[in-house]
Amino acid sequence: MSVANRQQTATSGSYDPASQKLLTFHDAVPAFRDGSDSPRAYLERCLEVIEAREPEVQAWVTINREGARAAADEASARYKAGKPLSPVDGMPIGIKDLFMTKDMPTEMGSPLFKGNETHADSALVYGLRMSGAVILGKTVTTELGFSHPGPTRNPFDTNRTPGGSSSGSAAAIGAGMVPATIGSQVVGSVIRPASFCGNYAIKPTLGALNRGERAGSLSQSHIGVHAGSLEDMWAVSYQIAATAGGDAGYPGLYGEETPAGSKKPTHLILLQTEGWEMLDGTTRAAFEQILEQLRRQDIQILTRADSPTIDACEVAMAESLKLARDICCWELRWTLRNLAEKDRSLMSESLQQRLAVAEDMDLAAYRIALDKRERMRTRFRALAPFADGCITLSSVGIAPAFDGSGSVGEPGITHQTGLPAFNAATSALGVPAISLPLMGISGMPVGVQLVGQTHRDQELSAIAAWMRESVKPVSL
Amino acid sequence: MSVANRQQTATSGSYDPASQKLLTFHDAVPAFRDGSDSPRAYLERCLEVIEAREPEVQAWVTINREGARAAADEASARYKAGKPLSPVDGMPIGIKDLFMTKDMPTEMGSPLFKGNETHADSALVYGLRMSGAVILGKTVTTELGFSHPGPTRNPFDTNRTPGGSSSGSAAAIGAGMVPATIGSQVVGSVIRPASFCGNYAIKPTLGALNRGERAGSLSQSHIGVHAGSLEDMWAVSYQIAATAGGDAGYPGLYGEETPAGSKKPTHLILLQTEGWEMLDGTTRAAFEQILEQLRRQDIQILTRADSPTIDACEVAMAESLKLARDICCWELRWTLRNLAEKDRSLMSESLQQRLAVAEDMDLAAYRIALDKRERMRTRFRALAPFADGCITLSSVGIAPAFDGSGSVGEPGITHQTGLPAFNAATSALGVPAISLPLMGISGMPVGVQLVGQTHRDQELSAIAAWMRESVKPVSL
Repeated sequence: MSVANRQQTATSGSYDPASQKLLTFHDAVPAFRDGSDSPRAYLERCLEVIEAREPEVQAWVTINREGARAAADEASARYKAGKPLSPVDGMPIGIKDLFMTKDMPTEMGSPLFKGNETHADSALVYGLRMSGAVILGKTVTTELGFSHPGPTRNPFDTNRTPGGSSSGSAAAIGAGMVPATIGSQVVGSVIRPASFCGNYAIKPTLGALNRGERAGSLSQSHIGVHAGSLEDMWAVSYQIAATAGGDAGYPGLYGEETPAGSKKPTHLILLQTEGWEMLDGTTRAAFEQILEQLRRQDIQILTRADSPTIDACEVAMAESLKLARDICCWELRWTLRNLAEKDRSLMSESLQQRLAVAEDMDLAAYRIALDKRERMRTRFRALAPFADGCITLSSVGIAPAFDGSGSVGEPGITHQTGLPAFNAATSALGVPAISLPLMGISGMPVGVQLVGQTHRDQELSAIAAWMRESVKPVSL
Repeated sequence: MSVANRQQTATSGSYDPASQKLLTFHDAVPAFRDGSDSPRAYLERCLEVIEAREPEVQAWVTINREGARAAADEASARYKAGKPLSPVDGMPIGIKDLFMTKDMPTEMGSPLFKGNETHADSALVYGLRMSGAVILGKTVTTELGFSHPGPTRNPFDTNRTPGGSSSGSAAAIGAGMVPATIGSQVVGSVIRPASFCGNYAIKPTLGALNRGERAGSLSQSHIGVHAGSLEDMWAVSYQIAATAGGDAGYPGLYGEETPAGSKKPTHLILLQTEGWEMLDGTTRAAFEQILEQLRRQDIQILTRADSPTIDACEVAMAESLKLARDICCWELRWTLRNLAEKDRSLMSESLQQRLAVAEDMDLAAYRIALDKRERMRTRFRALAPFADGCITLSSVGIAPAFDGSGSVGEPGITHQTGLPAFNAATSALGVPAISLPLMGISGMPVGVQLVGQTHRDQELSAIAAWMRESVKPVSL
């Protein structure tokens, strides 16, 4: 309780979920086809928003204006010739600065990688370029994707965090700078910042989108997509899978190119996870209003009180934050050791703490953590017959202020970009999660999170589409 | 047949499995402890062999003599103080040049990575240094671990290949230069060169040893260990797992620090795989003599004719070479594209062919390949109740000559370092395999391969220990 209560004491924002306009791309395509608009003109409009908002939001590490203009001109020519490459042809996209781009450095939010030129594209970047997308720039990530923040500010209140680690990707969508950005999530790095910045976002099934050079180092990291609409979110996800595939050994994202139509669920399971007890009263009341709207439309909302199977899953998920911490620290042990040998003074205190956690672990401790995670997954699979999907919040209330009031968390590990208490479980499960910007609390966004079974990403997006149509956003 | 028959026409080698001495380390440790020998003196003896044999064998890309001497001196001091760090403290080890070393470049057998300094250690290198091992140098790999060969020659006949891709690691052991080297296997890159060069070697269970920066790009790659003895092979494997762990998401190598004692099996399954039909008569006759020795010691040798379960497994494995090719080409697609964009002229013809194979595939084709692999794994697990392990050959006869006579293989892909027809299946299965230098054919080594169930690595090494004691090497 105390964390969220403190969050309420900071300034109020300007966000209203009912009136907020996000930038969309899919609905601009007809005008590209008939010549009344073009990807180049679309890009210039994005750049105008960036010029206006970037000085305060600071979502970008690098913007490749000229490269983007050249790519947008090529896309414009393809539409003119009636031959676009894909539904994302001409779409300006921001890439989280953890992923390699051949035309921009990859600095990973760490001074240890300042000016790091890779001269190569990450698999997903390669795939998006093949699909005609305009790779506009690199978005700010926290230090190596962990908790130490970059300069980015929340577009709805610059005294607050945008969330992390996909800070710039979420803020750029919230500020309407681009229609889609790439993020990644190991614990809560897509869904939480999407919640804080009022994005649509998907963290798909584990392995569904090719992590490229990031693959292998962390067993539960996922590529995610932030967007101004469910349609663009799906189009980008689909194109990455179609061109770059999933991770090695994984079958990749399942689903059709065309975004799913809306599908009304009959049963949804309310997943409380660790976040529920940390929730402030206002956010909980807003979420209850969302649930009440669903019940009034004859959707059954099941909880742990309704079934021992659901309760067993909640019990298995009860210590996901610590579990995620242990798994990630162990897996990054040798990487962090190498960095510490290079120059420990260029690592944040928080990152050094993680190395210390790792050095206290051994292979036996890691095996126990893997076993706990596997049991969680088994418990979650057992929920499949009960409902069409699960529903919960995307974050523990609104974005914390920069005064550090939201920074407490697991012992020894700070979370200056907000606590991933509603995300650690779904990340460990490796199942798809979608955030919908349906709530405004004190003028700041909070997302509603839908969670599905493995490989049911597109079915989950159909439920999300129904929610967007049929649930009225709630402001409190 | 034709491949192997052509192999017989080249020169004959000098190898006799009964008299060949390999370099061992574990039995030198007592003398380190009582002061009559030291790791530094041991290293100098290794360097003498290297001086003598390296000009013709060419196993090494880089040798860090001074760094190794400093590390050996530190190890010597620890033994003197009665405080060695581990059973591999002071052991000179060669590292396949696919893996990062902070004090030597990592060139990966490709001109595209000439002089590539990483300033960091791969997880396994880091772990071995923590254990006191002396990282002596980098051993030659084929181009990026694929088929285009480096300069290394077979230590028993320099007109023949050492095998690949762990060419230098296998040749260094065969030439008695060091007691252990690190290799890696995606299709047949540890067990096949170990066979050609008369090594002991293990390709452990998939994920058992941390692949570090190599993890994630290929779903069936494995770290392996080449050694002059089963004891050193196990000690190195164990230490990597204890210090660096397994791959992210995997429980790491199971087993005790002390190498397994010998254990006589009661039943072994003869796995024919694709290699059997390609075998020349002499090698097959030698292998039959090995089997006959086992039968005379009351070990039952089961074949596909004895059980429909075994037959079903053989059927499922029947196209493993093509399966491995498809899986690997797809998984490396974006990496190869990036390299081709940098400078296609610096890629071998063979590597360019693989990119072409990859570009002809799509996600649906890859899913079919993954599904076939999963069915193979299911079929192989079903063998567990029938026997203590499986037995087959480690390679299709002896090392082919450099005249290219052994280079035919799958359509469009050449295998100038020998055909991995006895290895592709066990690699795809992800199960442990051990090669024992028990046969000499025309004066060249050929290994006997033991194959076990997932995580049964140490049990398999116990059967290997029994074989070494109880089976007389065969020369034909």
